[in-house]
Amino acid sequence: MAKVADVYFRVDPWKIIEEGFDPGHARVSESVFSLANETMGVRGSFDEGGSADSLRGCYVNGVYDNEPIGRSYRGIIDHSHFMIPAADWLTTGIELDGEKLDLGACRFRDFRRELDLRAGTLSRSFVWQISGGRELRLSFLRFVDMTRRERAYQRITLEALNFSAAVCVETGLSFDVVHEGRGKRFWGEPRREARDDRIALQARTLLSGQEVFCGALVTLPQQGETVSDPYSVRRRASLYLEKGRPVSVDKRAVILFDGSEGDTLWERGISALRESAGTPLDEALRAQQAHWEEFWRTSDITLEPSGKQTAQAVAAEQQGIRFCIFQLAQTYNGGSMRHNIGAKGLTGEAYNGHAFWDTESCCLPFYLFTAPQAARNLLLFRYNTLPMALERAKMLDCKGACYPIATLNGQEACPLWQHASLQLQPSTAVAYGIWHYTRVTGDEAFLWQYGAEMLLQIARFLSSRAARGQRTGKYGFFGVMGPDEFHMMVDNNAYTNYMGKRTLAYAAEVLRRMRTEQRTAYEALAKKTDLQETELSLWEQIADQMYLPQGEDGLFEQHDGFFNLPHTDIQSIPVSEFPLYDHWSYDRIYRTDMIKQPDVLMMMYLYNSSFSGAVKRINYDFYQPRTIHESSLSPAIHSVLAAELGKMDEAVSFFGYATRLDLDNYNRNTREGLHITSIAMAWANIVYGFAGLRSDGENLRFAPRMPGRWRRLRFTIRYRGRVIGVEMQAERTLFRLEKGDALPVQVYGGNYTLTEETLSVPVM
Amino acid sequence: MAKVADVYFRVDPWKIIEEGFDPGHARVSESVFSLANETMGVRGSFDEGGSADSLRGCYVNGVYDNEPIGRSYRGIIDHSHFMIPAADWLTTGIELDGEKLDLGACRFRDFRRELDLRAGTLSRSFVWQISGGRELRLSFLRFVDMTRRERAYQRITLEALNFSAAVCVETGLSFDVVHEGRGKRFWGEPRREARDDRIALQARTLLSGQEVFCGALVTLPQQGETVSDPYSVRRRASLYLEKGRPVSVDKRAVILFDGSEGDTLWERGISALRESAGTPLDEALRAQQAHWEEFWRTSDITLEPSGKQTAQAVAAEQQGIRFCIFQLAQTYNGGSMRHNIGAKGLTGEAYNGHAFWDTESCCLPFYLFTAPQAARNLLLFRYNTLPMALERAKMLDCKGACYPIATLNGQEACPLWQHASLQLQPSTAVAYGIWHYTRVTGDEAFLWQYGAEMLLQIARFLSSRAARGQRTGKYGFFGVMGPDEFHMMVDNNAYTNYMGKRTLAYAAEVLRRMRTEQRTAYEALAKKTDLQETELSLWEQIADQMYLPQGEDGLFEQHDGFFNLPHTDIQSIPVSEFPLYDHWSYDRIYRTDMIKQPDVLMMMYLYNSSFSGAVKRINYDFYQPRTIHESSLSPAIHSVLAAELGKMDEAVSFFGYATRLDLDNYNRNTREGLHITSIAMAWANIVYGFAGLRSDGENLRFAPRMPGRWRRLRFTIRYRGRVIGVEMQAERTLFRLEKGDALPVQVYGGNYTLTEETLSVPVM
Repeated sequence: MAKVADVYFRVDPWKIIEEGFDPGHARVSESVFSLANETMGVRGSFDEGGSADSLRGCYVNGVYDNEPIGRSYRGIIDHSHFMIPAADWLTTGIELDGEKLDLGACRFRDFRRELDLRAGTLSRSFVWQISGGRELRLSFLRFVDMTRRERAYQRITLEALNFSAAVCVETGLSFDVVHEGRGKRFWGEPRREARDDRIALQARTLLSGQEVFCGALVTLPQQGETVSDPYSVRRRASLYLEKGRPVSVDKRAVILFDGSEGDTLWERGISALRESAGTPLDEALRAQQAHWEEFWRTSDITLEPSGKQTAQAVAAEQQGIRFCIFQLAQTYNGGSMRHNIGAKGLTGEAYNGHAFWDTESCCLPFYLFTAPQAARNLLLFRYNTLPMALERAKMLDCKGACYPIATLNGQEACPLWQHASLQLQPSTAVAYGIWHYTRVTGDEAFLWQYGAEMLLQIARFLSSRAARGQRTGKYGFFGVMGPDEFHMMVDNNAYTNYMGKRTLAYAAEVLRRMRTEQRTAYEALAKKTDLQETELSLWEQIADQMYLPQGEDGLFEQHDGFFNLPHTDIQSIPVSEFPLYDHWSYDRIYRTDMIKQPDVLMMMYLYNSSFSGAVKRINYDFYQPRTIHESSLSPAIHSVLAAELGKMDEAVSFFGYATRLDLDNYNRNTREGLHITSIAMAWANIVYGFAGLRSDGENLRFAPRMPGRWRRLRFTIRYRGRVIGVEMQAERTLFRLEKGDALPVQVYGGNYTLTEETLSVPVM
Repeated sequence: MAKVADVYFRVDPWKIIEEGFDPGHARVSESVFSLANETMGVRGSFDEGGSADSLRGCYVNGVYDNEPIGRSYRGIIDHSHFMIPAADWLTTGIELDGEKLDLGACRFRDFRRELDLRAGTLSRSFVWQISGGRELRLSFLRFVDMTRRERAYQRITLEALNFSAAVCVETGLSFDVVHEGRGKRFWGEPRREARDDRIALQARTLLSGQEVFCGALVTLPQQGETVSDPYSVRRRASLYLEKGRPVSVDKRAVILFDGSEGDTLWERGISALRESAGTPLDEALRAQQAHWEEFWRTSDITLEPSGKQTAQAVAAEQQGIRFCIFQLAQTYNGGSMRHNIGAKGLTGEAYNGHAFWDTESCCLPFYLFTAPQAARNLLLFRYNTLPMALERAKMLDCKGACYPIATLNGQEACPLWQHASLQLQPSTAVAYGIWHYTRVTGDEAFLWQYGAEMLLQIARFLSSRAARGQRTGKYGFFGVMGPDEFHMMVDNNAYTNYMGKRTLAYAAEVLRRMRTEQRTAYEALAKKTDLQETELSLWEQIADQMYLPQGEDGLFEQHDGFFNLPHTDIQSIPVSEFPLYDHWSYDRIYRTDMIKQPDVLMMMYLYNSSFSGAVKRINYDFYQPRTIHESSLSPAIHSVLAAELGKMDEAVSFFGYATRLDLDNYNRNTREGLHITSIAMAWANIVYGFAGLRSDGENLRFAPRMPGRWRRLRFTIRYRGRVIGVEMQAERTLFRLEKGDALPVQVYGGNYTLTEETLSVPVM
């Protein structure tokens, strides 16, 4: 079970640094060095490509194609969509006297790659050792613009160290991009423009019919020419390098995907390109740095070691948590309500770019407390895709709205029926997200305008999916798969029943309140959705009579029959058998008391204040030893609860590699892309876990419990117009209201008011 | 729920007759008019093809191809095999003055098609009405040879009724055959021979690499020519027809598939073809008739109506049961231990030609009591495919042998993991088959030579798949799908646990006896299989401590949690929603107390004498109203048990359409092929149901209970060298020992001995 760090990058508080290039780590580095600005993302691949192992990918958020997967039974999807690589705006070739730059084949020295978390840039430099002892220093810089999201920049600098000669440089754009997993290019032949002052391509996906524009202005220091072939346009120049005199090639790219197509998109693209002509790369770089500076001012977490012996580990954690926050903010920052957060963000093909219920259950808190508008937009993504959820419920012979387990565009895209048809948690997670968002932000306008309609349709779905057990006489959900995906087609899953109960009760409560407080809006909604008054009563009745499989001691049975399942001693499973999905016969993982990720504990994490400490403890003590954590989201949930229960050793142990899951490639699959949603849990692990923030009650609550290896932990949260600085120290915690009105909070259960004065609360 | 007859064929005691051709019934007729001789089968399609709706198929038993189905998880098959149409030996074209015979487009009268159950022939005749008022009578005859299984015959007779003219007739062989469901020809280009005295093709499947030879001798009444194209060879002649003078074209075909290939197969094929030259069609026809006459002498069931008011219905039943027996004997008759019984036999593409556990659980009794050698060969099919079953168990992380849920060649071919991985009943059915075969035949040599090894490996599989429940402390099978396929991934399925218990106990008993009685054989087997003595004890321990979910009242809970499942009133489901697989969301069928087919009742059918009448009654009364019979095997099991419980109305009602399931197209899918394994249950329904035969005790037992609409029911069974005639009458049952030694039997629980004298037992 022990996961082991694969230490490769240099530790630095603000940078991820690779010194020397190990081809065996090539794909891991590509993932780690990913850049994104929510609208687009790019893996840290070499601009010039080459023969080293690589998964090259420039992605545009929301761009996908479809594939048929064959009809089987009703309610099972017959086609699925998946993110595809879009225009490659980094395409570059460098050649000297017939030798082509290829780091998989050439000799080179002093390789260094740096991701600068304060600047949002990726740079790379090395000295190319060419035949005849000639040495050419090459530096590459790239960034995707956080302020003008359609823009991306590339700079190539060449310096002949010990010779003078002409070097051929070619750089451009290409739609000749292949989805590696499917071994196929999903783009039709693009419209092309290859002029001396600009190059541009516009292509359409094969089946989904989406169009993407990609154009670039290339600034060459000397005269160049334009070349083009069916899928690519490029600028080329033979640059005469004088020894010791660096020259640079700048490329300003525009990638546009806004739902328009044909001439309209083309004209918009060309226009955006013209506009970008007014912003030289250096100016854009300054704006980029300013953006990240402002971001870190309110979103940073800082860690200080308690002593010399922990200094190194804490420095690694410091780097790790910043990397997590940086990647999360790159992936999604509220730029659009058409975007969601893919499990791998925009950093690879794995998981097909799909978003899961992780968004509401794991990522939302980060945004609620750092960028509430982004949290709102994530929920609006669900509102905008409500029509697909209504359609999906119909496919399942149910009413209302069933949200997909995996999606890019709102449609269900998971080809495994056992997940797509049996997991109700995406729907209850959306309802939970609305509840949590409203509770934290107080944004009731959102509730009336969007939330209520989603809640209504989710409640309809749940009430049509629930049924009464003949023996218990109570309602429950039969034939489901809860968050623990190691048990399927189970009855009365504790999580599903509990979340269903809460969702139904909340939906009824919101709609009853709406009828009183927002009469007109309510009537419009009731008319639009053909809502019957009896429905609210039905939801309340089901919520009221929901079966919760809890013993007198407070222990929940995860589902009917769980306690009779044969036991698996998870400590006895050899490490070589992980992940179990790859090493065990598929059916075998489903019939023991081993669980994949928190299920009963998950509901206690989400509705934390609704469960007593004693109930949390007995359930934690029972389920924790049976959990294999085959989901990367699992340890953080356990860490948060362990901290709450005062099990600091376990809390620290589960926190373990949370901040460095990808930096140290703990799961050995970072090559496929970053675990973006797990990254969100690293933040939650600190803020909910060690600072003990709870946001499911009336007021914010804190219960700081700091691991011994830290001397100081500082972070900032936003809350209802306020900015609150929290500084945990060994003996006390300081709360500073950096902005906004006074605020009542609880710390260790005691009531305080945050004002301009620093509040100091001794550690309990 | 009511299934309704679609009456189309004329009732006749020994023939299936179609008068007039309804294109809407074309495929149903094709299925019903199927011919086979176990080695090959052919649907009743028109020799000349044409534009009428048709599923044309000439099948060769054991000929299949593979297709990849994509890798998913461990233990899930990544390719599947399926029966494909092989050489079409009926290919025919008839043309007059440029008009081509096509019953989908031409005018014709007096269409009649007849399947003769006593001759094993299919004939068809009609008058083709050609332009200018010309009328040409055409008659077609075909049969597949039951005595020389590689041979098949076709005769085309032409008679110009009111004109004289030349008619072009072309007839030959073709591998240009397409699997309709997959829209693809699975044959490489064949080797061809097109001579005036013989034509031949030999082709190889695309992926499975099987080779089939097909040759023919065509006897033309006048001079002809030979034509050929890449996939076909044909003989063609312009036949001058004199008004009123019929002429015939005979074709004698040889289809050879014996595992050899290349020149070897070709030479064997040509040699078989030469040999067939000595047998004119009429001589082969006489042999065919003689074969069927002998067959009916000992395998017939005759029914006589109790009065005028039941005469018509009973005549239909008489025809129906003979059709069933005929089709079953055509599909399999013990010709080879390489063959099994596909769910659709050799009559269509549906179910891919796969055999299921129906073979042992439903078909075996028919053979045990009519052709014991065939029963033995069916079990030897399992012995021959033991290596694949060992391989399959490994794929599932288990030991021993796991028999496939669907197969042609012994490998698992079911692409649905939930069936392939969770259903243990194929393995327990093989064990049951061995037990039943040995018990009925007394053939212990089989047991020591083959049965013991299969039992050993099955017991190994079961013992590695069983586990101890933490709450019950007893063994059970977790995560299974029992015979009731409307519940999956359940724990402690009553059937699976019970059958597992019996299988483990029986395997241990057989091996312990073998160690004593067959020391040498035992030691050889133990060495071959690396059998440890502790294994037998383990099997006994698991059998002993197997959890059987039975209440004090004797009612079994079908699986853990079944009694709490929400109720579905199956009477309230509209007929339009059947079959549910097509009309309900896939996941929806799995979460109520509705069951697809007998599960608890199935074990009481198989191990009938192990359950008291009271236990059978309480379980029947509970489960029968919850059963939707979406399997065509279901009603017969219920009918047998209802008869035993004295519920004669229900027994008769469930018997209902058993004999005419396909003749009257009750399930509306006979177009896809015949329900061959259900056909076997029609026989069992009468012999086990109404005659009350029980074969799971020491002696044969009978308990005749005749439905009121019959006056007399007669049938014959073979048993340990004896031939026993049974004649049920309203007041008494007569037992005649037609051959063999005296035999103790039980009738209504009373002990009798069958001797030369007719035994008459009054009805109780």
